[in-house]
Amino acid sequence: MTDNAVHSQVVEAEGHLIDSQLLNVIFDTVIKWDASFEVLQFTIGRTNDEPSSISMRIASPTEEGLQRVLEELVPLGCQIARATDALVRRADRDGCVPDDFYSTTNLRTLVRHGGRWLEVAYQRMDSVIVIENLRAVCRKLRDVRAGDGVVCGVEGVRAVPEFQERDRLGFAFMTNEISSERRVEVGVARIAAIMADVKRSGGGIAFVAGPVLVHTGGAEHFCDLIRAGFVNVVLAGNALAVHDVELALFGTSLGVDLETGKAIHGGHRHHMRAINTICRAGGLAQAVAQGVLTSGIMYECIRHDVKYVLAGSIRDDGPIPDTIMELREAQDRYAAVLTDVKLVIVLSTMLHGIGVGNMLPAWVRMVCVDINPAVVTKLADRGSSQTIGLVTDVGLFLHRLAQNLRGLP
Amino acid sequence: MTDNAVHSQVVEAEGHLIDSQLLNVIFDTVIKWDASFEVLQFTIGRTNDEPSSISMRIASPTEEGLQRVLEELVPLGCQIARATDALVRRADRDGCVPDDFYSTTNLRTLVRHGGRWLEVAYQRMDSVIVIENLRAVCRKLRDVRAGDGVVCGVEGVRAVPEFQERDRLGFAFMTNEISSERRVEVGVARIAAIMADVKRSGGGIAFVAGPVLVHTGGAEHFCDLIRAGFVNVVLAGNALAVHDVELALFGTSLGVDLETGKAIHGGHRHHMRAINTICRAGGLAQAVAQGVLTSGIMYECIRHDVKYVLAGSIRDDGPIPDTIMELREAQDRYAAVLTDVKLVIVLSTMLHGIGVGNMLPAWVRMVCVDINPAVVTKLADRGSSQTIGLVTDVGLFLHRLAQNLRGLP
Amino acid sequence: MTDNAVHSQVVEAEGHLIDSQLLNVIFDTVIKWDASFEVLQFTIGRTNDEPSSISMRIASPTEEGLQRVLEELVPLGCQIARATDALVRRADRDGCVPDDFYSTTNLRTLVRHGGRWLEVAYQRMDSVIVIENLRAVCRKLRDVRAGDGVVCGVEGVRAVPEFQERDRLGFAFMTNEISSERRVEVGVARIAAIMADVKRSGGGIAFVAGPVLVHTGGAEHFCDLIRAGFVNVVLAGNALAVHDVELALFGTSLGVDLETGKAIHGGHRHHMRAINTICRAGGLAQAVAQGVLTSGIMYECIRHDVKYVLAGSIRDDGPIPDTIMELREAQDRYAAVLTDVKLVIVLSTMLHGIGVGNMLPAWVRMVCVDINPAVVTKLADRGSSQTIGLVTDVGLFLHRLAQNLRGLP
Amino acid sequence: MTDNAVHSQVVEAEGHLIDSQLLNVIFDTVIKWDASFEVLQFTIGRTNDEPSSISMRIASPTEEGLQRVLEELVPLGCQIARATDALVRRADRDGCVPDDFYSTTNLRTLVRHGGRWLEVAYQRMDSVIVIENLRAVCRKLRDVRAGDGVVCGVEGVRAVPEFQERDRLGFAFMTNEISSERRVEVGVARIAAIMADVKRSGGGIAFVAGPVLVHTGGAEHFCDLIRAGFVNVVLAGNALAVHDVELALFGTSLGVDLETGKAIHGGHRHHMRAINTICRAGGLAQAVAQGVLTSGIMYECIRHDVKYVLAGSIRDDGPIPDTIMELREAQDRYAAVLTDVKLVIVLSTMLHGIGVGNMLPAWVRMVCVDINPAVVTKLADRGSSQTIGLVTDVGLFLHRLAQNLRGLP
Repeated sequence: MTDNAVHSQVVEAEGHLIDSQLLNVIFDTVIKWDASFEVLQFTIGRTNDEPSSISMRIASPTEEGLQRVLEELVPLGCQIARATDALVRRADRDGCVPDDFYSTTNLRTLVRHGGRWLEVAYQRMDSVIVIENLRAVCRKLRDVRAGDGVVCGVEGVRAVPEFQERDRLGFAFMTNEISSERRVEVGVARIAAIMADVKRSGGGIAFVAGPVLVHTGGAEHFCDLIRAGFVNVVLAGNALAVHDVELALFGTSLGVDLETGKAIHGGHRHHMRAINTICRAGGLAQAVAQGVLTSGIMYECIRHDVKYVLAGSIRDDGPIPDTIMELREAQDRYAAVLTDVKLVIVLSTMLHGIGVGNMLPAWVRMVCVDINPAVVTKLADRGSSQTIGLVTDVGLFLHRLAQNLRGLP
Repeated sequence: MTDNAVHSQVVEAEGHLIDSQLLNVIFDTVIKWDASFEVLQFTIGRTNDEPSSISMRIASPTEEGLQRVLEELVPLGCQIARATDALVRRADRDGCVPDDFYSTTNLRTLVRHGGRWLEVAYQRMDSVIVIENLRAVCRKLRDVRAGDGVVCGVEGVRAVPEFQERDRLGFAFMTNEISSERRVEVGVARIAAIMADVKRSGGGIAFVAGPVLVHTGGAEHFCDLIRAGFVNVVLAGNALAVHDVELALFGTSLGVDLETGKAIHGGHRHHMRAINTICRAGGLAQAVAQGVLTSGIMYECIRHDVKYVLAGSIRDDGPIPDTIMELREAQDRYAAVLTDVKLVIVLSTMLHGIGVGNMLPAWVRMVCVDINPAVVTKLADRGSSQTIGLVTDVGLFLHRLAQNLRGLP
Repeated sequence: MTDNAVHSQVVEAEGHLIDSQLLNVIFDTVIKWDASFEVLQFTIGRTNDEPSSISMRIASPTEEGLQRVLEELVPLGCQIARATDALVRRADRDGCVPDDFYSTTNLRTLVRHGGRWLEVAYQRMDSVIVIENLRAVCRKLRDVRAGDGVVCGVEGVRAVPEFQERDRLGFAFMTNEISSERRVEVGVARIAAIMADVKRSGGGIAFVAGPVLVHTGGAEHFCDLIRAGFVNVVLAGNALAVHDVELALFGTSLGVDLETGKAIHGGHRHHMRAINTICRAGGLAQAVAQGVLTSGIMYECIRHDVKYVLAGSIRDDGPIPDTIMELREAQDRYAAVLTDVKLVIVLSTMLHGIGVGNMLPAWVRMVCVDINPAVVTKLADRGSSQTIGLVTDVGLFLHRLAQNLRGLP
Repeated sequence: MTDNAVHSQVVEAEGHLIDSQLLNVIFDTVIKWDASFEVLQFTIGRTNDEPSSISMRIASPTEEGLQRVLEELVPLGCQIARATDALVRRADRDGCVPDDFYSTTNLRTLVRHGGRWLEVAYQRMDSVIVIENLRAVCRKLRDVRAGDGVVCGVEGVRAVPEFQERDRLGFAFMTNEISSERRVEVGVARIAAIMADVKRSGGGIAFVAGPVLVHTGGAEHFCDLIRAGFVNVVLAGNALAVHDVELALFGTSLGVDLETGKAIHGGHRHHMRAINTICRAGGLAQAVAQGVLTSGIMYECIRHDVKYVLAGSIRDDGPIPDTIMELREAQDRYAAVLTDVKLVIVLSTMLHGIGVGNMLPAWVRMVCVDINPAVVTKLADRGSSQTIGLVTDVGLFLHRLAQNLRGLP
C-alpha cells in the first residue's frame, strides 16, 4: 500500500478461492490497476472440502481508480464488507439505463434490497438487474422500460463463482485440454456419461449445431441420439435444416453425394430445390405431415417432439418458413427453450454457440466440439469452469457418441 | 461413348476454355456422372488473345442422367447447340417455383426468349430467372409471386464464364495463393493498386468487416482510408459498430486497452456501456450530431457520407438502433448499396463475407483478408477467378494498406 | 507474339493435356514470363481415352528469357522439338555441379544420349541427372563426384506428367478436397480400397507417422493394421517410438493416461523412463527379445518383420539406440526401404511427410491425414495428382480404417 | 483425509504461491491421484511483495500412490519437510540410470548432499542430476557414464518455481494471450522494450528462425536487427540458410520473386542452385570471403560475428556444408551458444523452437511468434510463466520490430 493511497474499501470473499484460482485473479486485478491490497484476515480450507475466506483492504490513489478496481472485483466474488443496500436508479427512457449501471455476469448473483439479499432471476451475462415487486431480475437492455428500477454501482451486489471443485473428478479435469493431440475416445466416453447423468436427473439437453454436422456424415448418428431420447432442444440456423432436408431428399449435402463423395460442380442446385420443396409444403412440420419429408434430423425432431428453433443469418438462402429472420424474436425463442436445459452441446458453429453461451447462466454446462481449435478456445472462454472443449471431426464424434450411448438409460 | 448410350445432346462452348481450366472441368463433369463425350470440332486459340471453341456430343445411358450432366454443363459455359427458347413456367404460389427451375450462378447469363437472347439483370447466385415485360431478371425465391414466369430446365440458357485472361497480369496471378508463407507486402501493394484503379474509374469500393478489425488495432488506419476516399460502402454487424464506439469512448476493445494491452477481467462492461450510450442518443448519426461520438470508424462513415449497413446476428448484444435485426431487410439493404460497387474487401468476417459473396455477380472482384487460412479458402471458393485471398494480421494489413495508398489518387 | 521477339523455340507435348490442366499451366507460364506462344498444331482427344498433342512456338524478347521459360516448360511435359542429345558436362569437384545443371522433378524423365532416349533411374525431385555406363540416374548433389557427367540445360530432356485420368474413378476424384467439412467415412472407405488393391498387387505400403498417432489413441488400431499385413514400412522419428514404448510400459502418452485422460503435471517423467528402459535393453529389438517390451507399434513391427527407420530431429530426447541421428544416413535408409513401396500414408507429421515426399517419384501415391488443414495442404502440394488429403482426427481415422480393412484380403 | 490413509508425508512450500497459481495446482494434483491433503500451517503474504508459506500433510491409501503424488509435487516447489540427503545411486552402464532416477524440470533446482543444499548447474528439463566433486549438474541421459552418481527419488530435492510477480508489469501481463484477435503493435512494442533491456544489461539475444521468415519478406528487417546489434545468436535449419542465400543470389524464395510475387512452377530450381553455389564455395563463410555472397541474413551474421548454428532435418535438400547433420552434435552446439542468452525469440519454427525450449532453464525468457495459433500454444506450453506468444505474420512483425528498435540503445 503506497503512502499516498487515501481511497480504500474493505472487501470480503469466501469459498474455494484457491481451487478456482480466484484469489490469484483477485490479486492480479488489484495490481494491474495500480491499486494495492492488504490482507486483513485469511483462513485457508484445511482439506479439499473446506472453504477459505479472506478480508482485505483495497486502496488506490484516486477514488475513480478504486471504483474501477471494485467493479472488477465484484464479478470475482468479492463483496464490499460494509453492508448497504444496492443503489437503485430509474431508467429515464425505454432501452436505456443510467451510466453507472451494474452489468451482469453469468454467475449466480445476489442483490441487497430493503436489507435483504435477493437472488437475481433469469441470470445471464451482459444484462442489467431490475428490481420490481421485491424481486431482482436480469433484463436485457432493450427490454428495459422508462421508470424501471435499475441496480447501479457495485455496493450491495454479490456474485457467486462456480467453484471448480463441485465435480472435481468429472467435468473439471477435462477443462483447458483444448488440443487436437488428445485421445477423443476418452472425451466422448465422459460426455456420454454426463449426458446419461443429466437425462436420468430429468434435466434437458440442448444441441446447437452447424451444417458441418450434415456435411461430415453426422446426421444419421444424430438421429440415433434423438430416437434414444438424448436430445431435448435443437438450436441452429437455416442452413442446418436445409442441408438436412437436401440430404433427406437427394442424398447430397451442398451438392456432395454423401455415399460416394462425388461433388456437383457449383453444388447449390439441390440446396435450392430443398428450400423450394419446403416452401411449397409451407414449412417443415407440414412437409412431414404431407409425407414429403420422411427422414433426417428435422423429421426426427418433429416426430419426437424435440423443440427446435432456427435463427436466421445474413448469409441465408431462402429461408424456409421455419427460420426466424427477426433476430430479437429468435434470441427470445432461443432463451425460452433453454430454460430447463442443464447441458448444451455445441457442434461446429461459432455463431450460434456464442449466441447461446451469452444466454446461459454459468451453472449450465457446455460442451464444444469443433475440428478447429481456435473455435473451441473461443467458445470455451466464458470465464467459467463449466465448459469442455473437444477438437475433433464432428461426424466421427457423433458416430462414437451414438455408440457410447447405445444401451445407456 | 458406350454402345448402349442412346440419350445424347450436342453442346457448344466458346472462349478462353483452356486458360480458365473450363475444358478440363467440362470433361471431368461428363465422366463423373458416367456419361461420355465425343469432340465433334475443336479450334484452339493460336495465341493468348484468341478464343477457343468446341462442339461435342454428350451421351448417357439414361435421359435422366443426360439431363443431370447438362444441368452441370450449362453453368460451365456450355450451351445446347439446338437453338430453342427457354422453357418458361408459371409459379403456382408465392415464394415457390416449379421443381425443374433453373438455379442461377453468379455468372453473366443469357436466356433465349421469343427467339432473342436476353441478358439477365441483377445477376446473383442461388436465384431463379423470371421473364417479365420481355426482360429477364434474377429473383430470390422468396420474392417470386404466383403467376411469375420462371425459367425452367437448361435449354435456351447460356452462362458466360469470367475468363481469367482478362487481367492476366494483375488480379489473376494472386489467385490460389492462399498461404501464410507469402510476403504480404507484395499482396498489399497489388491491392492498393487495384483500389486506386477502381477509384479512378469511378467504381465503388465496399468493405465488409468483422470486429477483429478493431481488436487488432486497424480502426485508425481504416479511418485513414475513409478520409482518403477509398471507402464507399461499409457492411458489417452490430459488433463492429459497438467495438468501434467502445474504442472511441473508452479506449478499449472488448475490455482490452488498445494502448497498453491491459485486459479488463470479463471485459464486457465497456461494451455494454457503449451500447447504452448509443441507445440513449437514439443511434449513431444522432450520437455524432450530439457530439457524443467524436471519432472512430462509424464517426468517419457518417462524416464522409459512406453508406453503411449493419446486419444483426444471433449473438448480438443490444443491439444499437442502427442494426437491422430483420434479416430479409438487411439482405435487401446490403444488396442495394452494392449496386455500383466494383471491388469488395472482406476483413475477418466469414459470416458477412459469405453473405455478401452470395449477392455479387462474378465480375465484381473480391479480396479476402483473414489470419485464418481456412476462412480465406472458404471465402475464395466462389467458383470464380475474381477472388484474391491474403492470410495475414488484419491490423497490420490495414496499416500497410493505408501507407501504400497515401498520396495515391 | 510481339514483333521484337527474335528468340524462339518450337516445343511439343502429348498426352492428356486438358484433363491434367497441363495446357493451361503451360500457357500461363509462357505469359507470366513475358514470353508469347503461337500454336502450330493441336489435336484434341476425341473421347476421354484419347490423348491430345500440341506443337507450338515459344518466343521471348531475350535469349535469357527464352531459356527461363523453357526451363519451366520441360517439367510440364514439353519437349524441345529439335531432337538433340542432352548436354552433359563434368562435375569439377565432389558435391558440386555446373551452374546450368538440370534440376529434377519427381516425374518420370527421359534423357536423350547417344541418339537414344534413356529413362532416368531412381527418379526423385531436387536431384541432378548423371550419365554413367549408358544409363541415366538421379543423384543427390552431395553424392556427385568430381568427373561425373551431369545433364545440363533442357535440350534432350523429357518429363512425363502423371496424367490424372489413369484411375479417374478412384484416386483422382478425392484430390483437392482438403476440407474439414467432408464426410471422412467416404474417404476412409476409398483409402481402404486402395490399400487392399496395392496389397493384392504385391506393392508395398509405407506409413510415415508422428507421435500424435499415439496421443490420439490410434496405436491399437495401427497394431491391427500391422497384424493384418497392411503395413510394410514404418518411417518415423524418435518420438513415435518413445511414446509408443511409454504407452506399452506405463499406459500413458506424454504423461496423459490414455484410458482415463488424467494428465501428469509436466508429464515427461514416464517419457524419460521409457527412453531409459530401451537404452538399458540396448534397443527396441533387444527389448522385445528380453521380454521387456511386449506390446505396441514397435513391438508389432519387430514381430511382423515390418521394416522401420527412425530418423532423429533437433528436439529429440534420448534418443533410443534405434534412432539414426546422422541425417544423411537416415535419408539414405528412408530412401532404401521405399524402393518397392507403391502407397505412402502420412499420419500427422509434416516434417517426416515432407522428407518422404521429396524422395518419392510422382507415381507413388501419397495419402496425408492431419487434423490441421494447413499441413494437409502443404503435404499435398507436390505438383502431382497422386496425393489425397484428409482433414480429420488421426485416432478416429485409424479406428475406422482398421474396421474397414477387417476381412479384406 | 480418509481414515484408511496410512501412508503420509509432510511437505512444505514457500513463495508467491497464490500469484503463480501454484497452490491451486498443488491441491489439484493431490486430489487427482486420489490422495488427500491437510493444511497444517498457512501464512499468506499480506501485500503483493510478501511471500506465502504452507506446510501440509499428504496422505494416500498406498505407499506407491504417495510416491507418485510426491514425484509430482516436487517440481511444483514442494519439498519434503524431513531434511535428508538426496538418494544417490550409481549408473550401472553408459547411457542408462537406475529406474527411480529424478527426471529434471527446467526450474532452478537444489539437491541436498552431505547435509548441504547444492544448486544444480546447467539446469534443463528431461535430464538427470549427477553428483560429482561435491557439485550437482544436469546431464543428458546419453552423457551419463557407468559409475556416475545419479540422484534418485524425490527426497532431498527442491525445485524453485519462477514466480510470476517478478516483473508483473512487464512480461507477465502478456502471457496466456495467445489469440489472433489482439493488437500486435502493443506486443511488438513490449518485445522491443524487453530486447533493449536485455541488451543494456549485457545479456544475449538468440533468434530461432524458420524459413517462413524469408518467404514472408522478413529477411531485410532481420538484417536491420543484426546490424543494430540486437542479434547475438541465430539457431535454424538448413532451409533458412538456403532460402536466405536463394534470396540474396536470385531475389526469389522457394521460386517466388519477393518483389513481384511471381512464382516459378515447381520453384525448387533456384533453391538447388543456391545450394550448389555454397557447396562450390565450401561453405557460407567462404562464400562471403570469396565475394559470392554479398547480402542477406547469413552474410550479416558472418560480418557481425553473430554465432549461428544450423541443425539438419530429414527433409533437408543438400545440405550446405555449414549444416550439422549429426544431431547429437547439433544439440550440443545449440546448447553451447545458448549459455549467456537471456532472451530467445522463436520465429515460425515449431521444430527448432521446441528443440531450443527443451534446452533452456525456466528463467530464460522466450517469445514465440507464428501465424498459426496452435504452434504458439504448443511452444508457450513449457510450464513456465516466462513465455510470450504472439499470433501474427512474421514478415510484418519483423518490419514493425525493426521500426520500434530504431534509435533504441
